[in-house]
Amino acid sequence: MSIPLKNDRLIRALLCQPVDVTPVWMMRQAGRYLPEYRKTREKAGNFMTLCQTPELACEVTLQPIERFELDAAILFSDILTIPDAMGLGLYFSEGEGPQFERPIRTSSDIQNLPIPDPHEALRYVVDAVQLVHQSLNGKVPLIGFSGSPWTLATYMVEGSSTKNFAKVKGLMFEQPALMHQLLSKLAQSVTTYLNAQIQAGAQTVMIFDTWGGVLTSRDYLDFSLGYMQQIVNNLTREYEGQKIPVILFTKDGSAWLIEQAGTGCDALGLDWKLPIGIARQQVGDKVALQGNMDPCILYASPERIEQEVATILKSFDAGNGHVFNLGHGIHPSIDPEKVGVFIDAVHALSQPYHEPN
Amino acid sequence: MSIPLKNDRLIRALLCQPVDVTPVWMMRQAGRYLPEYRKTREKAGNFMTLCQTPELACEVTLQPIERFELDAAILFSDILTIPDAMGLGLYFSEGEGPQFERPIRTSSDIQNLPIPDPHEALRYVVDAVQLVHQSLNGKVPLIGFSGSPWTLATYMVEGSSTKNFAKVKGLMFEQPALMHQLLSKLAQSVTTYLNAQIQAGAQTVMIFDTWGGVLTSRDYLDFSLGYMQQIVNNLTREYEGQKIPVILFTKDGSAWLIEQAGTGCDALGLDWKLPIGIARQQVGDKVALQGNMDPCILYASPERIEQEVATILKSFDAGNGHVFNLGHGIHPSIDPEKVGVFIDAVHALSQPYHEPN
Repeated sequence: MSIPLKNDRLIRALLCQPVDVTPVWMMRQAGRYLPEYRKTREKAGNFMTLCQTPELACEVTLQPIERFELDAAILFSDILTIPDAMGLGLYFSEGEGPQFERPIRTSSDIQNLPIPDPHEALRYVVDAVQLVHQSLNGKVPLIGFSGSPWTLATYMVEGSSTKNFAKVKGLMFEQPALMHQLLSKLAQSVTTYLNAQIQAGAQTVMIFDTWGGVLTSRDYLDFSLGYMQQIVNNLTREYEGQKIPVILFTKDGSAWLIEQAGTGCDALGLDWKLPIGIARQQVGDKVALQGNMDPCILYASPERIEQEVATILKSFDAGNGHVFNLGHGIHPSIDPEKVGVFIDAVHALSQPYHEPN
Repeated sequence: MSIPLKNDRLIRALLCQPVDVTPVWMMRQAGRYLPEYRKTREKAGNFMTLCQTPELACEVTLQPIERFELDAAILFSDILTIPDAMGLGLYFSEGEGPQFERPIRTSSDIQNLPIPDPHEALRYVVDAVQLVHQSLNGKVPLIGFSGSPWTLATYMVEGSSTKNFAKVKGLMFEQPALMHQLLSKLAQSVTTYLNAQIQAGAQTVMIFDTWGGVLTSRDYLDFSLGYMQQIVNNLTREYEGQKIPVILFTKDGSAWLIEQAGTGCDALGLDWKLPIGIARQQVGDKVALQGNMDPCILYASPERIEQEVATILKSFDAGNGHVFNLGHGIHPSIDPEKVGVFIDAVHALSQPYHEPN
């Protein structure tokens, strides 16, 4: 049974309902910029152990919530848990991005891919969600998440991080039907995975499309957004009487906000390229917007951070449907004190935009 | 005295004048995908020697022109020649991007930066342009180029390639006046440099803004486009009775095409994110457009390459002002035969779009 929320600003803002102040959280808020995270990470020994041990994943998920007045927790996990559960063998070497022992090479590799049962191979994620939900005890909502099908496919076909996407685009250009088969399996897997997170206690879910922005418009709509659409159609949108908002985020995807809003999701994540006021004009009242401060502002002085928060609030202007966030994950070298300045500035400076008329 | 052009399609298309077929060239067309380039590169010993020896730079500039029916040559050089001439000590280590021995660290570093005389520290570039112009003997036009002030500044402040732009954005956010001082010096240097290339025989010039796309809209307009505007204002736009078209290219900059067109440049380079037909609707007849095929298409089959060329030609549709190009530099692992297919497809398939009514 889900625990009632003491602070439901995030959920209300994602559903475009009135709030007292603009809610705020940060992508990668549980991460290396926090000394307490680095300590737990060291205790875990390696990154995968940290992800796969529910007690440790819970511990780092809660760390930023204890330190700052954040309005949400986001599950500490990796976007590549699904391909790992499909049998590709995810691993991390020091100083390298994620890699797979057995990347996708042939059409039979794709045909043989299983749709992972979230209660089997991804049990550790479901357990972590349950544990975080219990531990939060209604303090703030818990955000569940997954990588998008296209983003998962890029890593699965390339086998590691890539700069030029030669292999995955090669497959897409030469064997589009096979690519669609892979993406379709991934869309099913992501749907099942996110629904399991919702049943375990995630009060909203976010799909990270890290690499949709490397595609042409046509290819983005066909090979990335189309599969996020399938997921949106099949997600649990209400659970135990509570609406479960769905957030889509395509990095470098601000050219396609109207199409993203057309999927029927509740909110869109924005990077920092487009002023949020322009994004709002494009999507109207159809969806809430989450963003969109350049994470590099957190290197600047407290005064400069406050000035930037004020600029973004003014750009969005009064009205419902804004969740403050960075346009990308927080960098590991940011001073945590600056984060406190940022969070407090959002709450303090947004208050006038929410005063009842 | 400039040698008259036998093939002036590029210049005509950049000036939105009628042509028989759509002209085509490729960013990084003189590069590692060509075995003859790799041979010259080996002979040179290292990359900087290749750039700084006019005979060798000329040799590799001409290689793709000899192999393919390209409509332009682009000077083989590096975008970081100006900071090197300012005394920062450019070097390349195997497998790394460019690096500087003496990156910008203090405000006095900026105050002490000289505006390089192109006939002194950059003499090797001017000599290479002259030599290429003579060697081409009017076969196709020669494109001169420079990095944009913002792009040069990112490398000068970071000291090397960067993923998060922490140092250069830190300077921009915290000491905007100092950043403007640096950019202003760079704009003067780029102007002088490009004008020297024009006098030496470059028949058109292109400014590469590789990193403008990592900025917010506000910062792009202030810190990147504003300085390209200054350069456009002060370039030699006509030389020995010939118009010298100016091309601006901001990678990941398709959100700001209208503003770019407003600088008074002749043409805009496009990456592959936006369909060229949409870009054309935005800028109207104000500028020509150069682009915009995803370079990864060259990994695909000849049929798929031809199909993509046809799609882009159809998207631009009939009318003047299209230069075909990739949306980014050609990858080193592309098969040169595929390049031949691509070039020939542009000429063959574009012909119906240029038939006199």
